[in-house]
Amino acid sequence: MRVLAKDIAEVIEGAGEVEVSGWVHRIRELGGITFVILRDRSGLLQLVLSGEEASGEHAGGEASALTLESVITARGIPAKNEKAVGGAELRVRSLEIISKAEGDLPFRVNGDITKVGLEALLDNRALSLRNPKIRGIFKVQATIIEAFSAYLRGQDFTEIKTSKLVGGGTEGGAELFEVEYFDKKVCLAQSPQIYKQIMVASGLERVFEVAPAYRAEKHDTPRHLNEYVSLDVEMGFIESEKDLIELEKGLLSHIFAEVARKNAPELEQWNATVPDAAAVQRAPLISYEEALKLANGEAAKTRGGARIFDINPEAERLLCDWARREQGVELVFVNEFPRRYRPFYTYPRGGRSEEAGEGAASTMSFDALFRGLEITTGGRRQHDYRALLEVLPKFGLKEADIAGYRVFKYGCPPHGGFAIGCERLTQKILGLTNVKEASLFPRDRKRITP
Amino acid sequence: MRVLAKDIAEVIEGAGEVEVSGWVHRIRELGGITFVILRDRSGLLQLVLSGEEASGEHAGGEASALTLESVITARGIPAKNEKAVGGAELRVRSLEIISKAEGDLPFRVNGDITKVGLEALLDNRALSLRNPKIRGIFKVQATIIEAFSAYLRGQDFTEIKTSKLVGGGTEGGAELFEVEYFDKKVCLAQSPQIYKQIMVASGLERVFEVAPAYRAEKHDTPRHLNEYVSLDVEMGFIESEKDLIELEKGLLSHIFAEVARKNAPELEQWNATVPDAAAVQRAPLISYEEALKLANGEAAKTRGGARIFDINPEAERLLCDWARREQGVELVFVNEFPRRYRPFYTYPRGGRSEEAGEGAASTMSFDALFRGLEITTGGRRQHDYRALLEVLPKFGLKEADIAGYRVFKYGCPPHGGFAIGCERLTQKILGLTNVKEASLFPRDRKRITP
Repeated sequence: MRVLAKDIAEVIEGAGEVEVSGWVHRIRELGGITFVILRDRSGLLQLVLSGEEASGEHAGGEASALTLESVITARGIPAKNEKAVGGAELRVRSLEIISKAEGDLPFRVNGDITKVGLEALLDNRALSLRNPKIRGIFKVQATIIEAFSAYLRGQDFTEIKTSKLVGGGTEGGAELFEVEYFDKKVCLAQSPQIYKQIMVASGLERVFEVAPAYRAEKHDTPRHLNEYVSLDVEMGFIESEKDLIELEKGLLSHIFAEVARKNAPELEQWNATVPDAAAVQRAPLISYEEALKLANGEAAKTRGGARIFDINPEAERLLCDWARREQGVELVFVNEFPRRYRPFYTYPRGGRSEEAGEGAASTMSFDALFRGLEITTGGRRQHDYRALLEVLPKFGLKEADIAGYRVFKYGCPPHGGFAIGCERLTQKILGLTNVKEASLFPRDRKRITP
Repeated sequence: MRVLAKDIAEVIEGAGEVEVSGWVHRIRELGGITFVILRDRSGLLQLVLSGEEASGEHAGGEASALTLESVITARGIPAKNEKAVGGAELRVRSLEIISKAEGDLPFRVNGDITKVGLEALLDNRALSLRNPKIRGIFKVQATIIEAFSAYLRGQDFTEIKTSKLVGGGTEGGAELFEVEYFDKKVCLAQSPQIYKQIMVASGLERVFEVAPAYRAEKHDTPRHLNEYVSLDVEMGFIESEKDLIELEKGLLSHIFAEVARKNAPELEQWNATVPDAAAVQRAPLISYEEALKLANGEAAKTRGGARIFDINPEAERLLCDWARREQGVELVFVNEFPRRYRPFYTYPRGGRSEEAGEGAASTMSFDALFRGLEITTGGRRQHDYRALLEVLPKFGLKEADIAGYRVFKYGCPPHGGFAIGCERLTQKILGLTNVKEASLFPRDRKRITP
């Protein structure tokens, strides 16, 4: 019966021989004794191999044939050892090599992996993930997805799974990947936008989805992925985007708390911390116009005043710096984005768009910026089908382009939602330089493997 | 403050006026009084509107303008009424029409929706979902996904999210959708097969994924979808497919128990039951050869003996009928499939394939059949890179075709896994005729909308 590395210290009392399995993380010879650090999914364990202790035919002999990263099974007697990792070690009686690793590893898994370049890390993804620090990124990501889902279920949201094959984009056609679908051409969904909206209108009222989303953007930046995991939320019977911001504050607080609770070792490895619930509550909410002024004020202080004309990546960083200084939290909500920056389905602040003055037309929309990066876009949506039709010409759209929204004719509550970029949130929680580090198998213009 | 329909009975004590919101499910006039059945995400509630009780300007007047499926908010005084749904009703003082539904509904949402044809149900998905029985399908599906994930997390599995854009298929190229990816052609993943395997080899050991999978199959049957939700599992350090079958039994038992616990109303609506854990444990495990013999024996009894040559849909039904008769459960595990029916990465029963006799070559693989339908395919995989290379020619493959498996050279534990088709499991739990009924937005050769 296999015992995990992390549990060896617990089984010492009264244990006879136990069995462990895993990868050879490190090998060290000292005075005729071989010390092997075994790595399994739970952690590291020191194995001690010496000629005398080894009773099995494999033990002493096999040790010299061991290579780093080979998969082995060892049987032996657990013993306390204050100096060993985890306070215990296994005195090996027999050892079996399950899968011998070849010697030409592209980099040392057990070394300082942060010195390996990003391309080599990604080219050899399955190897770089063996490094506990790299693997930790995806343990945190798994917690984010679990906590996101659990929090929303607790708020009576229903999980949905919608098609990623769609007729056209709802946010503009330039950034769509085309799929050869039998005798048609269809597209990969940029987001579940329309589906989550019509699921609210279907009477589920509150829905969430965790699924891939696709953007055929050509630029290669540390903040973009062509395929990413979108954490989507949509909810009915709201008044304004402020209801959504309150929901997101609760959601982020829960995610941060769960990461703190479950991923303390990973946070420590990355020298990272997460904001507590009180800090999230202190996150400022400012309008787009205020945000521009603030960003320009910050820019004037730090680099002498070159103007910022929209909430670009520099502004996102400056606003988070400001929030940290003012409120001790690098989280800012910006609302009231101008109409021109938001999709056609965004709800105007003054009700129907033609009732509000054209020049000042702003929307019930928001972004969340965390540690210098936009992690969320959201807002209230137009639920009135006739009002939706009225704005279409301004966006170069016709009624036929939004056929899926026709269900709004048959009764649709006021609603809205948002999406969190899962990789961006992972990146910012751990302080990763590039969002690709937070994607298991990232896709960019050049990278389609592994 | 909004109160949900299901909670009205609880707030009656000492409550003043309360507010409810939802859709107009049914309208009935009786002796000058209007009875409106309101539907929200929680259930149904009777609203009582009469001229005298209505104090707001909207109430009496608006009632006559009410249309089915309009979204309304009503305020009033809750009262007990044994005859009303849920044992309570709301005596309305004011009523507001939030979103008026047009009168040309394509079918009655509040009627016997099972008489509406499948195409009309799917063409008008957001409307058909308003029917509580139809919506119930996806409440069950949400429970399946939650229970699948929770059970595996409890067994120390880590959730992963892998790319759906891949260079080529691992199970044959004919059934792949092509994507225009910048200046390249890539494919939509048929399954996360290779990714989940290399994630085991990366040291996570135990992984699961819930994600879309794509099959460009041209046939239109009640059991196929071109896009489906695959519930994938992969685990290291197993001996044979029997470890996986044990895992799946525990997993299915948990899923069934959670559906029974959380979805009693939905099961009742569909007149459906789920097997209990004891029944799942009694599910027979038979070899492919035995299964063929049994199916032929059953076929001889029921239709006079036309031969069955493989485990086809008819055999799947016959085997489940047999298991129900023998063990009282319509669940069968079939293992030891012949080499020719399984992908190249399947582990041979006798160890390396060339060591076992060619003619008798069978594999450590299995299918799970539930209520007459294959819901799972799985098996142990070849973890030895050289052994994997040896079988490639028989499958018309070269080493370059399986580049992703190269990490196995650097130490890979024995491992295996399986996938459950989420829509198929949903279909069979509820007894749906067509698997498309269990997909929110199903895709087939002709259907790419809504």
